[in-house]
Amino acid sequence: MDAHLIDSAIFGHQWSTAESRGIFAESTRVARWLDVVIALAVAQADVGIIPASSAAAIAGLRGAELDLEAVAEGTRTTSHSTLGLIQVLQRMLPADAAEHVYYGTTVQDISDTAQVLEIAEVGELVWRDLWAIEAELLSLAARYRETPMLGRTHGQPGAPITFGFKAATWADEVGRSLERLRQGRDRWLVAELGGAVGVLGFFGVQALPLRTAYCDRLGLGEPAISWLTTRDRLAEFAQVMAVVVGAMARIANEVYMLARAELAEVREPTPATTVGSISMPHKRNPEVSEQIVTLARLVRSSAGVLAETLVGEHERDGRSWKTEWVVLPELSHYVLAASGMTRSLVRGLEVDPARMLANLEATGTASSERLLSVMSARLGKHRAQATLQDAYRAAIGSGRSLTAVLDGQIEPAELAELDRFDTGAAAAMADEVVARATRRRAGESASWR
Amino acid sequence: MDAHLIDSAIFGHQWSTAESRGIFAESTRVARWLDVVIALAVAQADVGIIPASSAAAIAGLRGAELDLEAVAEGTRTTSHSTLGLIQVLQRMLPADAAEHVYYGTTVQDISDTAQVLEIAEVGELVWRDLWAIEAELLSLAARYRETPMLGRTHGQPGAPITFGFKAATWADEVGRSLERLRQGRDRWLVAELGGAVGVLGFFGVQALPLRTAYCDRLGLGEPAISWLTTRDRLAEFAQVMAVVVGAMARIANEVYMLARAELAEVREPTPATTVGSISMPHKRNPEVSEQIVTLARLVRSSAGVLAETLVGEHERDGRSWKTEWVVLPELSHYVLAASGMTRSLVRGLEVDPARMLANLEATGTASSERLLSVMSARLGKHRAQATLQDAYRAAIGSGRSLTAVLDGQIEPAELAELDRFDTGAAAAMADEVVARATRRRAGESASWR
Amino acid sequence: MDAHLIDSAIFGHQWSTAESRGIFAESTRVARWLDVVIALAVAQADVGIIPASSAAAIAGLRGAELDLEAVAEGTRTTSHSTLGLIQVLQRMLPADAAEHVYYGTTVQDISDTAQVLEIAEVGELVWRDLWAIEAELLSLAARYRETPMLGRTHGQPGAPITFGFKAATWADEVGRSLERLRQGRDRWLVAELGGAVGVLGFFGVQALPLRTAYCDRLGLGEPAISWLTTRDRLAEFAQVMAVVVGAMARIANEVYMLARAELAEVREPTPATTVGSISMPHKRNPEVSEQIVTLARLVRSSAGVLAETLVGEHERDGRSWKTEWVVLPELSHYVLAASGMTRSLVRGLEVDPARMLANLEATGTASSERLLSVMSARLGKHRAQATLQDAYRAAIGSGRSLTAVLDGQIEPAELAELDRFDTGAAAAMADEVVARATRRRAGESASWR
Amino acid sequence: MDAHLIDSAIFGHQWSTAESRGIFAESTRVARWLDVVIALAVAQADVGIIPASSAAAIAGLRGAELDLEAVAEGTRTTSHSTLGLIQVLQRMLPADAAEHVYYGTTVQDISDTAQVLEIAEVGELVWRDLWAIEAELLSLAARYRETPMLGRTHGQPGAPITFGFKAATWADEVGRSLERLRQGRDRWLVAELGGAVGVLGFFGVQALPLRTAYCDRLGLGEPAISWLTTRDRLAEFAQVMAVVVGAMARIANEVYMLARAELAEVREPTPATTVGSISMPHKRNPEVSEQIVTLARLVRSSAGVLAETLVGEHERDGRSWKTEWVVLPELSHYVLAASGMTRSLVRGLEVDPARMLANLEATGTASSERLLSVMSARLGKHRAQATLQDAYRAAIGSGRSLTAVLDGQIEPAELAELDRFDTGAAAAMADEVVARATRRRAGESASWR
Repeated sequence: MDAHLIDSAIFGHQWSTAESRGIFAESTRVARWLDVVIALAVAQADVGIIPASSAAAIAGLRGAELDLEAVAEGTRTTSHSTLGLIQVLQRMLPADAAEHVYYGTTVQDISDTAQVLEIAEVGELVWRDLWAIEAELLSLAARYRETPMLGRTHGQPGAPITFGFKAATWADEVGRSLERLRQGRDRWLVAELGGAVGVLGFFGVQALPLRTAYCDRLGLGEPAISWLTTRDRLAEFAQVMAVVVGAMARIANEVYMLARAELAEVREPTPATTVGSISMPHKRNPEVSEQIVTLARLVRSSAGVLAETLVGEHERDGRSWKTEWVVLPELSHYVLAASGMTRSLVRGLEVDPARMLANLEATGTASSERLLSVMSARLGKHRAQATLQDAYRAAIGSGRSLTAVLDGQIEPAELAELDRFDTGAAAAMADEVVARATRRRAGESASWR
Repeated sequence: MDAHLIDSAIFGHQWSTAESRGIFAESTRVARWLDVVIALAVAQADVGIIPASSAAAIAGLRGAELDLEAVAEGTRTTSHSTLGLIQVLQRMLPADAAEHVYYGTTVQDISDTAQVLEIAEVGELVWRDLWAIEAELLSLAARYRETPMLGRTHGQPGAPITFGFKAATWADEVGRSLERLRQGRDRWLVAELGGAVGVLGFFGVQALPLRTAYCDRLGLGEPAISWLTTRDRLAEFAQVMAVVVGAMARIANEVYMLARAELAEVREPTPATTVGSISMPHKRNPEVSEQIVTLARLVRSSAGVLAETLVGEHERDGRSWKTEWVVLPELSHYVLAASGMTRSLVRGLEVDPARMLANLEATGTASSERLLSVMSARLGKHRAQATLQDAYRAAIGSGRSLTAVLDGQIEPAELAELDRFDTGAAAAMADEVVARATRRRAGESASWR
Repeated sequence: MDAHLIDSAIFGHQWSTAESRGIFAESTRVARWLDVVIALAVAQADVGIIPASSAAAIAGLRGAELDLEAVAEGTRTTSHSTLGLIQVLQRMLPADAAEHVYYGTTVQDISDTAQVLEIAEVGELVWRDLWAIEAELLSLAARYRETPMLGRTHGQPGAPITFGFKAATWADEVGRSLERLRQGRDRWLVAELGGAVGVLGFFGVQALPLRTAYCDRLGLGEPAISWLTTRDRLAEFAQVMAVVVGAMARIANEVYMLARAELAEVREPTPATTVGSISMPHKRNPEVSEQIVTLARLVRSSAGVLAETLVGEHERDGRSWKTEWVVLPELSHYVLAASGMTRSLVRGLEVDPARMLANLEATGTASSERLLSVMSARLGKHRAQATLQDAYRAAIGSGRSLTAVLDGQIEPAELAELDRFDTGAAAAMADEVVARATRRRAGESASWR
Repeated sequence: MDAHLIDSAIFGHQWSTAESRGIFAESTRVARWLDVVIALAVAQADVGIIPASSAAAIAGLRGAELDLEAVAEGTRTTSHSTLGLIQVLQRMLPADAAEHVYYGTTVQDISDTAQVLEIAEVGELVWRDLWAIEAELLSLAARYRETPMLGRTHGQPGAPITFGFKAATWADEVGRSLERLRQGRDRWLVAELGGAVGVLGFFGVQALPLRTAYCDRLGLGEPAISWLTTRDRLAEFAQVMAVVVGAMARIANEVYMLARAELAEVREPTPATTVGSISMPHKRNPEVSEQIVTLARLVRSSAGVLAETLVGEHERDGRSWKTEWVVLPELSHYVLAASGMTRSLVRGLEVDPARMLANLEATGTASSERLLSVMSARLGKHRAQATLQDAYRAAIGSGRSLTAVLDGQIEPAELAELDRFDTGAAAAMADEVVARATRRRAGESASWR
């Protein structure tokens, strides 16, 4: 079906990526579940619970084409999440091996473990994108470290910064998200094997050796204890994703704002075939920037609903658990769509230093922080403040120049001298971000795992 | 694609319904957009903006099979939401009519109006389901008006109620949601026609007559003014849906709780082919009840994110607007899945009056409110309270009966006499709910519009 | 204490109003609870449950100064929400009347009813503010109905609108919220009287007559049935508040954006004593506008958490119920702070038509919708679109004028002729909003109840 | 004022603690701001920006009693967040030192840094509580490692676990939150010093040395770059708090459920003076457990709204920034209230092993996982499943015993033999949690910093 926009041929690309759709496509999901079933069987053979021949037969199904319609039919008939799949697998196996499919375990052993494998895949792509985005941002920070532009506070002209300074705050934030991903990785990537209620009662003394073998076969960590209703790992992953994409949205929103025609300091890259508007042929819209902000909203909302699932009841709670089934994939699509778009956005970002300078000059207020500093040294800070505030009000109200208004309080020559764009420690701070990140990246790679 | 669970052949039925998937399937969505394009053309012919022949040619496309892949390709190439469709339509038309497709309007005229048509369809189904659910609940309220059961507060045994009373609180809440849907309908079901920035600048003096004709052709209300960034109607619809499905979740959660084996007062209906658990063959799980609670969580979250879109900027704000594109359909799927499940749940609900009575008798505390009333009349209420609280503590702590503990303060015979299950005004309140609802329903129908 | 910012002497005015603090001050809250206790006693005397002398004695406590510290002490000792108050009241009464305080009822009878009385007070103030805001907006819509300004979409210059059109979209939205408040009023303003588990078991056959008398004495509606865990009314009130304040935030955010120095089309009113920035003496910040947006975020979040309480369990559920205790007052403070600020904002809004015109002229693209219309009539719309899009790209890229670029395709004179700011149906739509609202307001008053 | 429930003398203890109110009381907040002002002055003297005599005079104000009403008055008059305080401080200083108060910096330098100091205090208390809670839970896990109880899934009887296993899943989750707090600490505890727009333009070449001295004086980390609109640290702190309190809510909710009279396996500790219910004298309510769940909802909601602030604009954005002012303290109150309550809850938790055993025996289904295992070895797993499921249905439907139903398929003696409560790897998993935590705790202390 294509009743969700993610699955729309027409609009899916705005809400997901080819990669994300690959990860969560029905056929991949079922194949991933089969991978877990196989790992289980092989581990069970490893510790002597089932015959090696059964494990081999089951392992032989890897990559087999499955009758998804039959799986679906069995699922609907039994109202059981995995039985449809198991029945289809059994039909593909010799009788004795068929008995050993999914032996002694329960839905969450498969579904939770598969979910962790999904997180591993998604996390890897997010890391890759963040890593690349950080590189671009560090490059912007370095390239424009001394490029003056207007700093704005409360939406109003403030004092000069540099564009590199701004880009460095972005890189700084992205760098912390890489750190979060690294710190969370081993906490998140653990398998689930608990059986009916978490204690693996089916397997007697072989329970824990089986679990160890199972985790090894899957390449996942082994938890201390089953986590059937202990869902903090997943909620945390979602929250980190909300922070990750929040940083992207901040960048995108800033581009959207700075790209306003009245500011025109940056522009998002636009392919030649793009049509801005049918009814307004002159339009060139920051559509990618807008979409990233939208995606961040959705991810934040998804992370919020997952936080509710922390309060699961007893040893399994469908009310919490199933929420993840729909939310984690959805959130992953949106994150990956956003991270892909942000990569393009920062890589192709069009920066207009001349316009930045022009805007700075147009404000006539750019030097106020420096001017205040000089006058503070002379008049005391608080009198300097009052004097300047009165002067600005008078100048703005009357059309008189600041020079005229301040006549007698500061020499015109000195005022003119100040009228440069002192960007303070902007470049030095940008440099510090680059230096710290460069050191950190030297010990890392573009791969998460 | 099937990368969202709604579109999964295996699991889609838990998150959507055949009807909801029908409403939001790609082909239906495109057909609905085409319907709006046709209504526009016909209305433009009505007021003389385009020739009747063009309108007729365009109207001839209704129901035509469209090349969705070409639509998708055009959409991606132009990064424009409707241009892919327009180009495909143009190719299917004679040259002059092709010029009059989507004449002088903009994306939101189509997409907003189509969204309202979706709300009309979804609202109709929700109304139908709520109407049926209310009928079942009123029937439960009447049938079990005097069936005693334990009222529980803070999860602990309280005092007797009746099951009909409980069902009546459900019906009462559902009834208010029907009222909300009725009150909101005319506010929500209005078309959009604003052109580039909302003022229909393309059409000169024909603008408002065109808008009137367009709304007429669509069977939708005419707004006072364009609502390109005025999204309160959609946010309100979503919020009402959260309240609608919240009522369902309260019912479902109550069933889940009362179905606990230790209480076993009700059970959700279960088809014979359902398999509760592979690893625990005795299980019979309240899966539908759980799923309704899960769906309500998701709807609530969706409504929350739509409330953010109220703060749209200027005359179009993609950051707010596109959020609706994904959230409104999603929310609709979940609401309809929940309302369908709730219909089945309340229709087939298994109620066990004998077990209710047994649980009531087992508490030994059921008559406390009545006992307090009698003793209050004798001792004063506050001394009666203290006496009884001490008595209960003594009885619970010691294994002695309440009779023994209260010896000398109340006659054993009188105590025994009280030991019936007085359910106060439970039946009368249930009757009142039924009476009010019956009156209200007499003036309504099972159809919303 | 003053450990919440609402209660801060320094910052409280940004998060609440004198009125809202008056409604929710501890002394008022306790006095309101006492009012409910009195209404209960009087109603009980009305139907003969307690002696008239007791009711008179209890009613005599109205307005009495209570020992709040003793109430607090009793509350903490008993861990019971109303017992501390009851004990204090008893000490103030003769012995027999003391026995009849709070006779046969439970916490929620008091607290729910008091909460409804709070909603009545808050709703009244919100209605008053919305009514005043709508009046100001209608006045702006009328005054500036033909004042041209740039319509902006996706943050980019679009086509001309009028400022009156923009203000009319605000008024239109506010008007719908007044409608929602009116429709919800009778649904919300109902008392609670249910006793221990909702069935009023304490009162025997006098239960329903008592409830009727109680509601009458309070001037509140009578529900069909107790609503101890049926909380849709409160959740709906909160949601409507989120929509109400969302409209305010849209206005405030627009002011924030249009007040940017680069646009400077409007400014929020600023008292003379305001200091924009210490370090940047030239600053004049749209602080009120910012704060309204902030408050709307908080209200939305509060409404979202109240929606969770819909899923209450059994006959009382502290997990849901207590959420309201903290959230409803908080939300009310924020709404009233926002509505008060919005009143000031729209009343004192500084509008700069000259700057609006200058910005419109500066874009050079203002007439594109009209130009497209004229060229469409000549070339066909789709060729006209392509031609114009190419022309704008060429013009923007080269510094050549649109006239030069379009040379040969349209007469310079005709192009010049078009180069006025056609605002389409902007004024007519604004008029329609004013006309509809004026009709509606003729049947209403500035008072909600 | 006491218009927020946190500040209520009567109810404040349910929403905050004496410690949390101490941290956020107005006088403490102002004193903390003064501490930052002092650290700034001292650091400015360190690097030669202001005279040592001024710094000494300013430092002499530490702990001075301030005229909060004058601060409030100045704040309201100027609409500036720190100017009221500065003016009051100036009046307390000699003229030259007065000029050097708050020299060259801006509101966020003070308020952001103070906020970080608050996080340091709150984090310390949360760590202390979590550390103590984990210790109690580990103790429960060890003590009850072999105490059998019914595992429940979907609210229905499942198979046996042990209470120690359940407690170990709680400890396991709390342990991960301690890990998160430890990993986040250095990321969160950094000061802010950026001046007007983040680049410290006022200070020329002394900017960065000043920042270093300032951070040193405060005992906080030094950021690479100003973080005026880079708020991921605060949002992350809030999210971690939501996870922290989510774990507490899971415990509390489980206690609430297991304390149901029909289960009665655990009870929360209750002081002797507690009154459960006035109208139902027998009641003993799990009020603390309920309140913890309520608090978790509020924290989750607060964390959600803070995630919105990630998308800040330009160099200062009041719409995002001020949200933190109210939300961070509020969230901190709720977290500390919850963590204090959870400490009491787990320390005094009443566990009833006899009732656990009785409930287990009453289900008659406890051994199903083990029985399935034995029969699977004999019949093959899938036939065994079908056989058992039929048998349970027959037994439950007919009143016949499982033995009778399975007659001929398994020996009665063997069935009886199985009818013990095999708790699988429950104890071993609990041991593993204890062992890992013990190792981890050996390298930590009860103090966070």
